[in-house]
Amino acid sequence: MSNSLKQLLEQIKNGELSIESGLDHLKTLPFEDLGYAKIDHHRKLRNGFPEVIYCEGKTIEQVQGIARSMIDAECNILGTRASREIYEGILQVTPHVTYYEAARCIVINPEKRMTCQEHYIAVVTAGTSDIPVAEEAAVTAETFGNRVERIYDVGVAGIHRLFAKLDLIRGAWVVIVIAGMEGALASVVGGLVDRPVLAVPTSVGYGASFNGLAALLTMLNSCASGVSVVNIDNGFGAAYSASLMNRE
Amino acid sequence: MSNSLKQLLEQIKNGELSIESGLDHLKTLPFEDLGYAKIDHHRKLRNGFPEVIYCEGKTIEQVQGIARSMIDAECNILGTRASREIYEGILQVTPHVTYYEAARCIVINPEKRMTCQEHYIAVVTAGTSDIPVAEEAAVTAETFGNRVERIYDVGVAGIHRLFAKLDLIRGAWVVIVIAGMEGALASVVGGLVDRPVLAVPTSVGYGASFNGLAALLTMLNSCASGVSVVNIDNGFGAAYSASLMNRE
Amino acid sequence: MSNSLKQLLEQIKNGELSIESGLDHLKTLPFEDLGYAKIDHHRKLRNGFPEVIYCEGKTIEQVQGIARSMIDAECNILGTRASREIYEGILQVTPHVTYYEAARCIVINPEKRMTCQEHYIAVVTAGTSDIPVAEEAAVTAETFGNRVERIYDVGVAGIHRLFAKLDLIRGAWVVIVIAGMEGALASVVGGLVDRPVLAVPTSVGYGASFNGLAALLTMLNSCASGVSVVNIDNGFGAAYSASLMNRE
Amino acid sequence: MSNSLKQLLEQIKNGELSIESGLDHLKTLPFEDLGYAKIDHHRKLRNGFPEVIYCEGKTIEQVQGIARSMIDAECNILGTRASREIYEGILQVTPHVTYYEAARCIVINPEKRMTCQEHYIAVVTAGTSDIPVAEEAAVTAETFGNRVERIYDVGVAGIHRLFAKLDLIRGAWVVIVIAGMEGALASVVGGLVDRPVLAVPTSVGYGASFNGLAALLTMLNSCASGVSVVNIDNGFGAAYSASLMNRE
Amino acid sequence: MSNSLKQLLEQIKNGELSIESGLDHLKTLPFEDLGYAKIDHHRKLRNGFPEVIYCEGKTIEQVQGIARSMIDAECNILGTRASREIYEGILQVTPHVTYYEAARCIVINPEKRMTCQEHYIAVVTAGTSDIPVAEEAAVTAETFGNRVERIYDVGVAGIHRLFAKLDLIRGAWVVIVIAGMEGALASVVGGLVDRPVLAVPTSVGYGASFNGLAALLTMLNSCASGVSVVNIDNGFGAAYSASLMNRE
Amino acid sequence: MSNSLKQLLEQIKNGELSIESGLDHLKTLPFEDLGYAKIDHHRKLRNGFPEVIYCEGKTIEQVQGIARSMIDAECNILGTRASREIYEGILQVTPHVTYYEAARCIVINPEKRMTCQEHYIAVVTAGTSDIPVAEEAAVTAETFGNRVERIYDVGVAGIHRLFAKLDLIRGAWVVIVIAGMEGALASVVGGLVDRPVLAVPTSVGYGASFNGLAALLTMLNSCASGVSVVNIDNGFGAAYSASLMNRE
Amino acid sequence: MSNSLKQLLEQIKNGELSIESGLDHLKTLPFEDLGYAKIDHHRKLRNGFPEVIYCEGKTIEQVQGIARSMIDAECNILGTRASREIYEGILQVTPHVTYYEAARCIVINPEKRMTCQEHYIAVVTAGTSDIPVAEEAAVTAETFGNRVERIYDVGVAGIHRLFAKLDLIRGAWVVIVIAGMEGALASVVGGLVDRPVLAVPTSVGYGASFNGLAALLTMLNSCASGVSVVNIDNGFGAAYSASLMNRE
Amino acid sequence: MSNSLKQLLEQIKNGELSIESGLDHLKTLPFEDLGYAKIDHHRKLRNGFPEVIYCEGKTIEQVQGIARSMIDAECNILGTRASREIYEGILQVTPHVTYYEAARCIVINPEKRMTCQEHYIAVVTAGTSDIPVAEEAAVTAETFGNRVERIYDVGVAGIHRLFAKLDLIRGAWVVIVIAGMEGALASVVGGLVDRPVLAVPTSVGYGASFNGLAALLTMLNSCASGVSVVNIDNGFGAAYSASLMNRE
Repeated sequence: MSNSLKQLLEQIKNGELSIESGLDHLKTLPFEDLGYAKIDHHRKLRNGFPEVIYCEGKTIEQVQGIARSMIDAECNILGTRASREIYEGILQVTPHVTYYEAARCIVINPEKRMTCQEHYIAVVTAGTSDIPVAEEAAVTAETFGNRVERIYDVGVAGIHRLFAKLDLIRGAWVVIVIAGMEGALASVVGGLVDRPVLAVPTSVGYGASFNGLAALLTMLNSCASGVSVVNIDNGFGAAYSASLMNRE
Repeated sequence: MSNSLKQLLEQIKNGELSIESGLDHLKTLPFEDLGYAKIDHHRKLRNGFPEVIYCEGKTIEQVQGIARSMIDAECNILGTRASREIYEGILQVTPHVTYYEAARCIVINPEKRMTCQEHYIAVVTAGTSDIPVAEEAAVTAETFGNRVERIYDVGVAGIHRLFAKLDLIRGAWVVIVIAGMEGALASVVGGLVDRPVLAVPTSVGYGASFNGLAALLTMLNSCASGVSVVNIDNGFGAAYSASLMNRE
Repeated sequence: MSNSLKQLLEQIKNGELSIESGLDHLKTLPFEDLGYAKIDHHRKLRNGFPEVIYCEGKTIEQVQGIARSMIDAECNILGTRASREIYEGILQVTPHVTYYEAARCIVINPEKRMTCQEHYIAVVTAGTSDIPVAEEAAVTAETFGNRVERIYDVGVAGIHRLFAKLDLIRGAWVVIVIAGMEGALASVVGGLVDRPVLAVPTSVGYGASFNGLAALLTMLNSCASGVSVVNIDNGFGAAYSASLMNRE
Repeated sequence: MSNSLKQLLEQIKNGELSIESGLDHLKTLPFEDLGYAKIDHHRKLRNGFPEVIYCEGKTIEQVQGIARSMIDAECNILGTRASREIYEGILQVTPHVTYYEAARCIVINPEKRMTCQEHYIAVVTAGTSDIPVAEEAAVTAETFGNRVERIYDVGVAGIHRLFAKLDLIRGAWVVIVIAGMEGALASVVGGLVDRPVLAVPTSVGYGASFNGLAALLTMLNSCASGVSVVNIDNGFGAAYSASLMNRE
Repeated sequence: MSNSLKQLLEQIKNGELSIESGLDHLKTLPFEDLGYAKIDHHRKLRNGFPEVIYCEGKTIEQVQGIARSMIDAECNILGTRASREIYEGILQVTPHVTYYEAARCIVINPEKRMTCQEHYIAVVTAGTSDIPVAEEAAVTAETFGNRVERIYDVGVAGIHRLFAKLDLIRGAWVVIVIAGMEGALASVVGGLVDRPVLAVPTSVGYGASFNGLAALLTMLNSCASGVSVVNIDNGFGAAYSASLMNRE
Repeated sequence: MSNSLKQLLEQIKNGELSIESGLDHLKTLPFEDLGYAKIDHHRKLRNGFPEVIYCEGKTIEQVQGIARSMIDAECNILGTRASREIYEGILQVTPHVTYYEAARCIVINPEKRMTCQEHYIAVVTAGTSDIPVAEEAAVTAETFGNRVERIYDVGVAGIHRLFAKLDLIRGAWVVIVIAGMEGALASVVGGLVDRPVLAVPTSVGYGASFNGLAALLTMLNSCASGVSVVNIDNGFGAAYSASLMNRE
Repeated sequence: MSNSLKQLLEQIKNGELSIESGLDHLKTLPFEDLGYAKIDHHRKLRNGFPEVIYCEGKTIEQVQGIARSMIDAECNILGTRASREIYEGILQVTPHVTYYEAARCIVINPEKRMTCQEHYIAVVTAGTSDIPVAEEAAVTAETFGNRVERIYDVGVAGIHRLFAKLDLIRGAWVVIVIAGMEGALASVVGGLVDRPVLAVPTSVGYGASFNGLAALLTMLNSCASGVSVVNIDNGFGAAYSASLMNRE
Repeated sequence: MSNSLKQLLEQIKNGELSIESGLDHLKTLPFEDLGYAKIDHHRKLRNGFPEVIYCEGKTIEQVQGIARSMIDAECNILGTRASREIYEGILQVTPHVTYYEAARCIVINPEKRMTCQEHYIAVVTAGTSDIPVAEEAAVTAETFGNRVERIYDVGVAGIHRLFAKLDLIRGAWVVIVIAGMEGALASVVGGLVDRPVLAVPTSVGYGASFNGLAALLTMLNSCASGVSVVNIDNGFGAAYSASLMNRE
């Protein structure tokens, strides 16, 4: 940002830019204003990641409008927490869209995605019921250009299942551990690998799981070092952080 | 209890007991009333266990009084949550008393204790800081006549430590798992043994452990079957339940 | 497990097994991998219990797939939290299935169950509304080969109802107490019996019961010794623990 | 209040009182303003009860000032949550003061108290550690002119102790039940008596008792009818309500 | 109970009753066992109140069965938390039933109710939305033979509305205050009357009212003395306690 | 109020008003009693604001009745939390009604509203999903006669969007900041403006947002001074306070 | 800020400022960096308020250092949550300092404070124990140049005390209501005044007040409009907001 | 681990190792057992990090024992949550120890530490009171061989302070953000950088900060992507994770 600021000041000094225009530039980093949403086309330039639309709580019309604006910018786009209705709404905007039902994700312009990472991200779940959150993480990570290895249903109640997959988990550059109920898998994996572990509590469970609170507290208090935590059911957030860690 | 009721009714029928005395007996199972505490000498008869004094929140005088009443009944007695001051107060009542500092327990008439169980109870802790709760459990179980095996500091952050002790844990008739922080050890042990597991969350930890709440929730939500839970830091309670399970 | 390990090493020494195969065996305790679920056929061998499928949060297709894999192994199988739809899905896989509607349980190959225990498990509820959880516990315990006595609607508001059933409760080897609202029944029963009590809080109640939290806290803080607690509404978990205690 | 209002309007009509004075009277029910506290001498007139000073959080000087103002009004006075320092401070103001250490209460002009009630209030505790709260209740009720029967240490873990005292409890006009830990005693007593039960949760307990929260929730969810609840450790409040109920 | 016990012992002494029958009587206070519910016909004898059925969580068949059993006993009966379906189910059992829709209450044999109390119970609400809980309280109190005065929508946001009704409130023997949101009305009324106040928090509100928790805490911490609290939305419980207080 | 009181006393003195009438006036500030609701026509006189009906939890008939009573008083009226059904019910009472769907508000007699304020209120949201709460605030503020500037979707994740609108925000007399999820926008805005900030947490979010609790706590703990908070989703409340601040 | 930006750009255009210096200015709004604290001398210029030091959690040396830096800037300074030790530490830096013990505040250069507001702020407390928080609010407001009226101990338990002071409260431009326990005073005052009410919950209380949580929830759910809330015990924050509202 | 397993099996095949010894090796990864603690000398080999002793809750003797065992292994060692007493205890074991008082850390053999990383870790705090947690993070990261840049007291209440340091923050490979109170800094930084952000809530604050809970929830709900969270006050944990991310 400093460079463009310098150019701006030089333009003012040189008279190429009026003071009033300079003021406007200084105050307004470029983004497009749709009224109900402000879209930041510069994020992709800054961090090389695709645009993301969090679809929950938005109308189909709002998502269509945001998508239309982004598509002009010729990037690939990830929509999370997307119902099938949202997907069908996007289909009216562009045919270049794929729906990942288990992940509740849509990807626009999926062919523009490149997977060129040498390292891979392991996505590990404790149970079968954690798979939707895991798929949100996996699809996000793949859309962000990462290789992903899925290792599902290896919870600590039958720990031999975990050990059978240990080499694959240990080989990852970043490990995402997804677990509901008591969430103990994050601590066990954290004690077995020497790479960063991102823990995602899920709302899977009942009674005193309090919709994921139990797993969340477990993971925050992990006795294993190297574990950090994202919000309950936030597969996207874990994958986003993992993608940042997986870049050189 | 039915039998003695029957005898009582027979005595009334036979005129050996007046109706008024019968009424008294029916309403009053025998216990001794110290005013501030009602002592139940029959519990030992009923379940073969020693008397227990929960010392916290009682004055030294109260504990002395309760102990005096119990000593007359010639049983061995366990005092939990006992400070050194309580111990010294009991010493004034009887010399036959031992203080277990780590466990904060006193045992009166310790020589009367018999350890004749074939089976043993494993007391397992995740960390070094859980040892005081573990010692409360171990001393309680021993005072109640059980053989105890202590396996300390085998938390899941270094799970090979647990596996090195697995045979000893699997050999137990009942396993008490004691853990603070995230409490994941209970689930892992629960998945590895085929005997009842009593889980004791401890208040060891900080921040979002909320004084043991995190470990408590973890243990209640254990994905491994066969795990039941007692109150935070309640080593005594776990040992009491384990003693009931360890009898034939 | 040690024995089979020893055999394995002997086979390697004798050249009956290649080192590579040995490595695989060491890392992979045998289980079958369906992708979305890892099935552990050895659990039954290890602890003599039937397989269990927790149906909630799984699709009918997933439950069918798991059941199919298990049926090949010729064991009897318990499905908990099973809707009628799940039951009908299983009927398409095998006719040897029974649905317990109140318990929301299915049992596959129920004829293979043997009830040979001398001891029995008492399942006690405070109210009528606690019966679904109690039935989950009772059906589970029976499927695991235990004799069960049901004692329902004996809450402390009319404590004479409890005393009328006291002999039956006291005769049990393990007592499961199931109560919502304030959950006081666990403490009262705990004070009256000399056997382990497993307390199950239920989400029955309203307002400050907070979906079972009140009963859960009550039971964890029981002033009666010998009470341990499982998760809210977790009839299955209590029965599993009770089954472990009920074996000699 | 209506009567004095009527008199006031009549005085205005008759010219005995100026409109300005009338305005003042209408807005200002008589109380004395010490700056840091507003003392209401009319409360005693209104409800026949002594004045009460809640001492916690007040300086000795403030309590002395309030007491001095009240003593002039020649009533007997109850001070709750009073440390020994407060007591000694009051002694400097008047010799007519008694300190109840267990109850942490002071009573000024105790000789002015009359106990003329036919009915009595039963104060029942689950354990020995609940006695301080019980004594606050008992001393309050006695200072308010009630006969009190104390029944201590009859918690549900040994329910025969409760039954031995049942006649005394059932004979009361109002029953105050005081219990910490799981607080189950309130439900059991509520189911056995046909009079109003005031339940006082205490902060006695540890771990998941959360300083009385467990007992509070238990009592609010009591399955027995006729139980209402006051704040944790609020022996005074229960006794105040009971005194209102004990009047004819 | 003592008297009947004495008679029983006398009968045994006189040989009018066998020891075995005596044992049975001693253990079994009379109640009728429907399997899923134990009905206590003696409660009415003991406390003069009608039977009560808590309908929530019971099937229509269960409520019908309970009602049938009670009707034989010729008492009037109150059903709370009763849907219109429950009402229609009861209509198939007896035509002598009235449905109070706002209160969600049914009364069987309503003509058997006598209102002969000199004192009355005031039922006061803060807002219009609290009326369903208030009606549950009012109908309960009336069915239990009390005169009731309803004073609705007098919350503290417009405190003049409360003062306009103050004489009616002050004239009551017991006051039930029902309020959601912040529940401040209980404290204000508690400060204005000299009779017991039963406070009922309601789940009316949103956001940080947390389904009645805010009002519950407000009422438990009331700075006015003489206020005791029942569970959230528990209009029945408040009326039951008030009825006990309203008897001489 | 003092003035009318004075007149009243003068009338009594002059014999223009009987003492009994005076008593009535003194106790009854004028309001109209619909039975289920007490309507205060004087509020508008007192504070110059329109009447408000909180529609949630009221039947259409109740809202119609309240509206009818208010319309006679010829003021403009705001209905909040109003469904379309409520709107259509009001249409049957008067045609002079507008429905703001996004805000879930109805305004009766909207033409009577005057916007004459020099100052304006800024309504700022973090995201698109916060708009319904923002519209409730904006419509309320406008109905109360304020000029409103809407600045939506300027959350801190892309803080340049906020800075682009900073002049508009800083120019406001009062700023309402509306945010869900972590609610950080309130602190950032609070640090950038020198006018009062009213923060409204919204229930937008998932998992550990706990339906707005996270944003609520964030805002209460704001490190920026000048921020005060209203209930979760309470756009109306923020606008009401802001309107009070926006008057001279 | 726009103006100085414009000047800066003009200086660059005119060559009065180098581009490098311009860059520095643009990035660095002027503040002084002490290492452990960054001091913003421009805040006073921006909003006309004195500097504030939050002393809790800072060492005496740190507070001295911050004060020294500020004193050079010749403003008056408020220190909150200041112990007597902090005061004595400041005395070593400057003699121009006053300590308000009840408020735990220090004011440096108090003579520089001007009270020139026509309007006043009312600071109202429910009880005597709330006075320390009230004094923090009052001293803050006075140091910020406001006239303050203190109205203490007028809680709703004796509501006539409040009415006696109502004219003084209603005359205020802003009302700060400070209450612990159940915090009902905020709702009552909110219903009686037509000016903004800032509610401060205090940690005064015990048991289910949960250190101010009960009062906090009460105030957030206030049924009276015009009430906004600050953090528990945050007298300073309320006074800061009130000062912003009290300016024209 | 696979390699050594292979060697082990080869040794068994070759007869170099007996089956019994093989069994032992398979079950026991090498660690040293001090009884109260199990020390894992292989961790350093595995991940290249120094040993860590969490000192809280351990006696000086225990820490000395653990340190002695580790020192023999000739690594550098970090002790966290170390009081000055612990430091002095370690001094008796070795003179090669440094105490970082603000961080409450001890480093044994500090000269063995190498800082050779090209990338650096930024440690950013919102306030001065967050510095102890920040220093724990910084000292940990440095001991683990990272270059660290400290940026303290740049909270969002004065956001220009943050922007002045933005280049330094943006240049980091990993950013640790440490904030108490409302914790908003994590979201703002998360929106400004394109590298992983580790957020550490601190217990700094009062009232509704609930000892760090408010900041924790804020950070978990961050609207900025790329933020993951560790336990309250867990500076060590954040630095450990950051160190894993900072390695190539």
